Amino acid sequence: MTEKKAGFPAAVGSRRNEDYAEWYQQVIKAADLAENSPVKGCMFIKPWGYGIWEKIQQKLDRIIKKTGHRNAYFPLFIPLSFLAKEAEHVEGFAKECAVVTHHRLEKNEKGELVPAGELEQPYVVRPTSEMIIGYAFSKWISSYRDLPLLINQWANVVRWEMRTRLFLRTSEFLWQEGHTAHATEPEAREEALKMLGVYADFAERMLALPVVKGEKSALERFPGAVNTYCIEALMQDKKALQAGTSHFLGQNFSRSCEIKFNDQSGKEAWAWTTSWGVSTRLIGGLIMAHSDDDGLVLPPNIAPAQIVLIPVVHQEENKAQVLGYLRLLKAKLEKVPYLDGHLEVELDERDLSGPEKKWEWIKKGIPLRLEIGPRDLASGLLGLNQRHLPHKETLKMTEEELVQRAPQILQAMQEALFSKAKAFLDQNTVKIGSKEEFYRFFTPKNPHKPEIHGGLAEVFFSLDENIEAKLKADLGVTLRCLPLEKEKTEGVCFFTGKKGAKKALFAKAY
Amino acid sequence: MTEKKAGFPAAVGSRRNEDYAEWYQQVIKAADLAENSPVKGCMFIKPWGYGIWEKIQQKLDRIIKKTGHRNAYFPLFIPLSFLAKEAEHVEGFAKECAVVTHHRLEKNEKGELVPAGELEQPYVVRPTSEMIIGYAFSKWISSYRDLPLLINQWANVVRWEMRTRLFLRTSEFLWQEGHTAHATEPEAREEALKMLGVYADFAERMLALPVVKGEKSALERFPGAVNTYCIEALMQDKKALQAGTSHFLGQNFSRSCEIKFNDQSGKEAWAWTTSWGVSTRLIGGLIMAHSDDDGLVLPPNIAPAQIVLIPVVHQEENKAQVLGYLRLLKAKLEKVPYLDGHLEVELDERDLSGPEKKWEWIKKGIPLRLEIGPRDLASGLLGLNQRHLPHKETLKMTEEELVQRAPQILQAMQEALFSKAKAFLDQNTVKIGSKEEFYRFFTPKNPHKPEIHGGLAEVFFSLDENIEAKLKADLGVTLRCLPLEKEKTEGVCFFTGKKGAKKALFAKAY
Repeated sequence: MTEKKAGFPAAVGSRRNEDYAEWYQQVIKAADLAENSPVKGCMFIKPWGYGIWEKIQQKLDRIIKKTGHRNAYFPLFIPLSFLAKEAEHVEGFAKECAVVTHHRLEKNEKGELVPAGELEQPYVVRPTSEMIIGYAFSKWISSYRDLPLLINQWANVVRWEMRTRLFLRTSEFLWQEGHTAHATEPEAREEALKMLGVYADFAERMLALPVVKGEKSALERFPGAVNTYCIEALMQDKKALQAGTSHFLGQNFSRSCEIKFNDQSGKEAWAWTTSWGVSTRLIGGLIMAHSDDDGLVLPPNIAPAQIVLIPVVHQEENKAQVLGYLRLLKAKLEKVPYLDGHLEVELDERDLSGPEKKWEWIKKGIPLRLEIGPRDLASGLLGLNQRHLPHKETLKMTEEELVQRAPQILQAMQEALFSKAKAFLDQNTVKIGSKEEFYRFFTPKNPHKPEIHGGLAEVFFSLDENIEAKLKADLGVTLRCLPLEKEKTEGVCFFTGKKGAKKALFAKAY
Repeated sequence: MTEKKAGFPAAVGSRRNEDYAEWYQQVIKAADLAENSPVKGCMFIKPWGYGIWEKIQQKLDRIIKKTGHRNAYFPLFIPLSFLAKEAEHVEGFAKECAVVTHHRLEKNEKGELVPAGELEQPYVVRPTSEMIIGYAFSKWISSYRDLPLLINQWANVVRWEMRTRLFLRTSEFLWQEGHTAHATEPEAREEALKMLGVYADFAERMLALPVVKGEKSALERFPGAVNTYCIEALMQDKKALQAGTSHFLGQNFSRSCEIKFNDQSGKEAWAWTTSWGVSTRLIGGLIMAHSDDDGLVLPPNIAPAQIVLIPVVHQEENKAQVLGYLRLLKAKLEKVPYLDGHLEVELDERDLSGPEKKWEWIKKGIPLRLEIGPRDLASGLLGLNQRHLPHKETLKMTEEELVQRAPQILQAMQEALFSKAKAFLDQNTVKIGSKEEFYRFFTPKNPHKPEIHGGLAEVFFSLDENIEAKLKADLGVTLRCLPLEKEKTEGVCFFTGKKGAKKALFAKAY
């Protein structure tokens, strides 16, 4: 799989600009993040990949709690009759539901194991939990005093996808889903937008992933929602990725789940609800936004570990000395405060050659790498490499300097990754002035071997659903969002000639 | 539901010694931990209950990682054919499997939603993950260099139970399951026993739950295991609770999952595997071991918060002053180091009366309670109540003393709860010398209104399965474990008269 490049094996077999889809698979494989499983569309998330998810959970959970939400847990199964209560909702998910119909296994006459004990009513494995959490809310809420009710759940969900891709679209995925109920419409709207802001901040500060906050068109809305807000990011192949959504559900779900309360005047009213979620898909976005032809590049704020120490020892007699030193160094570094904890350090003691280990860690995207041998110990200068810079650009510093400077170096790397991604987003957000230009923007020059093209096309759009559908059919392009802007700008839609059209972003997307 | 008791509403409607099962339900309800859901045998875990689970996760996860394990995630669904590979294993779980047979919903002629898209091969919702993780291991392991492979998963699992009870036995539950593969038998045995030790320590230090470490008899073994080790705790109704298990699986699963490796001499060999888990059942054990007729009692080390501040204000004009003070006090307390973090403090600002709040927090089992009004501010002395002591036993101290002493007070409470439970376990572990005594020990004096009776019966037992089955049929008593002891003691089995019988503990159990 590996090939020679300037004396080193190249980390990833494919190049981004040659075959982006293949490059993505290779990065995941080379970094040992995840792999396909024998269960249709489901993946094995391996320790390094799961480590990223744990970081996301840890950091996002803290923010979700700080904004007043509490975690709870609800059943994996949803009675079919519950799902059926909200017509749009069930229609949106009916095509991708895993259905449990039996509750035991039995041997048939041939001695084969077959499902037995048919259920009176089938259960659907939750594709999302509005209907079961809505039921719980209907029991828990009776007075305005019970509101707002601000709940979050970390869970697995299942949507039976036909075409899957590791992290980006899998039949089972891990996520958090917030569900809230409020006494008034403005409060619920504010909540939906607040959590959108939380997601945008989180993506930008933690994942170094610049995003556009916006609202979905009716065609792209969550089934049953009044408004769906989203954050959209741009990948290096200029396709957009929906990285998180927040829904204002109006009273649709409170009516179908009967979430009623007595308001301050004693009158019965329907609650106003929201829901919002991000998933393991974020890891896909992270991979595609920052990685390069040598493999994964991890923003320090979300890396499972920030530093790897690699002993480089050619002679057996030096081994004990170098390892002894590195164990002490590891302990020192692990006491250095970093973000809301301390530096996390890997010491690679495996019985492999220095270059083998080095390339493995480059491919894994660990932010800082120290390769240390007897000569470094003698000189008192350690060589530090940063993952986002050329591999030969080594910073030499004393141990003391390293301990002192590591957090700043990591912070600078975090900012550099964000700035680079932000510049890419800005450069590839293009104002488009005519239909011809729009079609040209989204058409590869060489249809036989399509090159990376497109980006986010910014237009004024009169929200004509027929045109939206035609653009999807013609170009594979969807309306990503109507950006939320401080000052509303309106213009003429060049598709329809209508005035007062809103600003919209179109793109090919994952 | 509440009744008057010495001028206060009693926290829990039932008394432990009158109707233990009902008392258990009432404690859960009064503490707002969880409730039954409309999904058969599945529960809603409410925020205070889930908060306990989060603490268990957080603390146990740290230990699991420190002992060299890494987290990963595997599919929820297991192909039926995988499960069928290990005969004993599938037999053990066949009666309680939720089976997914379809992957979408469709409207039938009557307009009703029905399952559609039948799967070629059904999937079982994981009751445990040996077979799917075993498959992954077979791909990941090829050389002795890949061993040991030490993996843990935090996940939901489903076992279709007919008789369920909140936390103790539910169709879906949350757990962690460790799965490891080793090159040698002694190493795998050591791992299984090491993790049993981790569980025992965790139960005793964190949950204040004294346990007996032991081995299960063949009848009670995990389906497919060579040895099943367990920790057993004793509840206040003198029934035992299996609180965690660790299995030495030999080569049974590596053979059925084909987990092979080349050993150092280049020969192909089967790996030796283990698995081990604890679940939300621990919360049931926690509740039953420590709580009283006023509701839940939480050991400080596992409480979602250790301190509640309750403003007691009768006149509106004092409200701002008291609340202002308590907000500052909360901030100060939250800076006090406690265990591996800081004190966690609840400030109850809700618009309820002081006594209402007080009783709610007693029922919730929060370790320390401060009720504070304008007079306390004036005197400079704060009144501290400890959940495990009589409610009127108030410690008066200055703010400075509180900040200084709170961690020690909590630690003393943790120890007091453990000592009390340990004394109870010791008192109720009874050496039994004859069959008649054995039957008497497990028979209530009043069969019409059975009182709490029994305990752990310690006997020498020759491991006769017919007798084991008969004791279960006659008395509802099972062999909880053969205790692991430093020095092996053997004796005569009074059931069979055989010599060289091992020490065994029998009990009624959950």
